[in-house]
Amino acid sequence: MEKLQRSERIAVLMKLLSDTPGKVFTLGAFAEMFGSAKSTISEDIDVVQELLEKYGLGTIESIAGASGGVKYVPKLSEQQIFELLNETAGELTRKERILPGGYLYMLDIIYDPQKISAMGRIFATRFSSKNIDYVLTMETKGIPLAFATARYLNVPLIIVRHNNEATDGASVNINYVSGSSSKIQTMVLPMKALKRNSRLLFIDDFMKGGGTAKGIVELARQFECEVAGIGVLVETSEPVKKLVDDYYSLLTLNFVNQEEGIIDLKPSKKR
Amino acid sequence: MEKLQRSERIAVLMKLLSDTPGKVFTLGAFAEMFGSAKSTISEDIDVVQELLEKYGLGTIESIAGASGGVKYVPKLSEQQIFELLNETAGELTRKERILPGGYLYMLDIIYDPQKISAMGRIFATRFSSKNIDYVLTMETKGIPLAFATARYLNVPLIIVRHNNEATDGASVNINYVSGSSSKIQTMVLPMKALKRNSRLLFIDDFMKGGGTAKGIVELARQFECEVAGIGVLVETSEPVKKLVDDYYSLLTLNFVNQEEGIIDLKPSKKR
Repeated sequence: MEKLQRSERIAVLMKLLSDTPGKVFTLGAFAEMFGSAKSTISEDIDVVQELLEKYGLGTIESIAGASGGVKYVPKLSEQQIFELLNETAGELTRKERILPGGYLYMLDIIYDPQKISAMGRIFATRFSSKNIDYVLTMETKGIPLAFATARYLNVPLIIVRHNNEATDGASVNINYVSGSSSKIQTMVLPMKALKRNSRLLFIDDFMKGGGTAKGIVELARQFECEVAGIGVLVETSEPVKKLVDDYYSLLTLNFVNQEEGIIDLKPSKKR
Repeated sequence: MEKLQRSERIAVLMKLLSDTPGKVFTLGAFAEMFGSAKSTISEDIDVVQELLEKYGLGTIESIAGASGGVKYVPKLSEQQIFELLNETAGELTRKERILPGGYLYMLDIIYDPQKISAMGRIFATRFSSKNIDYVLTMETKGIPLAFATARYLNVPLIIVRHNNEATDGASVNINYVSGSSSKIQTMVLPMKALKRNSRLLFIDDFMKGGGTAKGIVELARQFECEVAGIGVLVETSEPVKKLVDDYYSLLTLNFVNQEEGIIDLKPSKKR
């Protein structure tokens, strides 16, 4: 019976920890839940950690001190990231995706809960050491990706919008030039949305010129916050020089040849 | 060693199944992964199911036939739903949320990955028997909730927008009257977004008059699809008569009294 108890605890610990990545659980809380000693729980968690690492499912980190405990970190290995990006690039280069004007249809991928969660997990792996307080995105198409990233980092999501609403309260508005269309647009964020002196991760589905990212950096400054990371799913190889320097893209779109039905899109080179 | 192997398999099965709710796994795939007999895996999955149910974490369902296998269903009990809704109602009725004009600030809740995932899980529980093919939402504020619901139902998310973009391809546009503002607005959905004859679940953060929901029903008709369910996080008690009849709301906002700092918002009565 003791053995069954142990496998029971390990399975439930696995589920509870991995359901809320980044959340710190105390050994005491688990000890109470299972009616076990803390030392027993500690051994169980070692087994959970070994299993996660053995099957490439992430790891467990311990946090020392009074507010200490253990948390699940959904880290991916370089090999897993490589495979996920190649698979996604493969799906995005099917020629049925070419639209009139040489555009690329990506909506089915960027709104797919499982696929976009995997991409969010890559960003969470990449930015896990950056002490991110919030994930920011600009409406609309990057929201699922940003939401998935925020969930894996266990931080709130903030959506910057083009217009404000009565239900937002007072807001900060700034104008920015969209790098791709050269149009002047507005971004709006409620005053209440961000705590001052926070570290932000900006996530978006697409970057061409980088105008939106630059606008976000400016908006962050108005809130006395710092953009500590920028992650985009797809960047275009042209223009080479973007309006922001330091960003991380998963995939690079080199060109779409509408006549010959060729899409050249590859995992981005390491930077 | 055999015992450890068993606890190992159970823990990993727990994680793999619950990471992708609704996805059907074959016993053969698991048997191969662990180098075990299918009958052994079948016993392991019975244990996973017992544990999930014992700790109120959902259940495992078996699908018979050639494409058969097992899947994780993240069902919540009535008691769990009751507790989650009371907790959320408690957070939404703190008087600091009252904005000028008597509006209620909800952005921190509707963009919170953990909290809104719990609400999405309630919708997935409610609509799991409706054979939903897609979750639809209207941009912007309902997107995290709709994404979480789609993830738990393991179906694609579709975001209806106010304007179309070149990267959407050809689209269907319809006009609708927003029930709360009486303004005429446009909703746009790319032709490629939906397969014909699909069953849709419309999810939104807020319903006052029901004009958006009614517009979605009309839009669905243009795609020869059926709205098989409507779920909203918060409905207002006024107007009593909405523009759609059959919907499911989690919370009901009765009134906001700005002068006295009182918000009357409660879990919705069963319908």
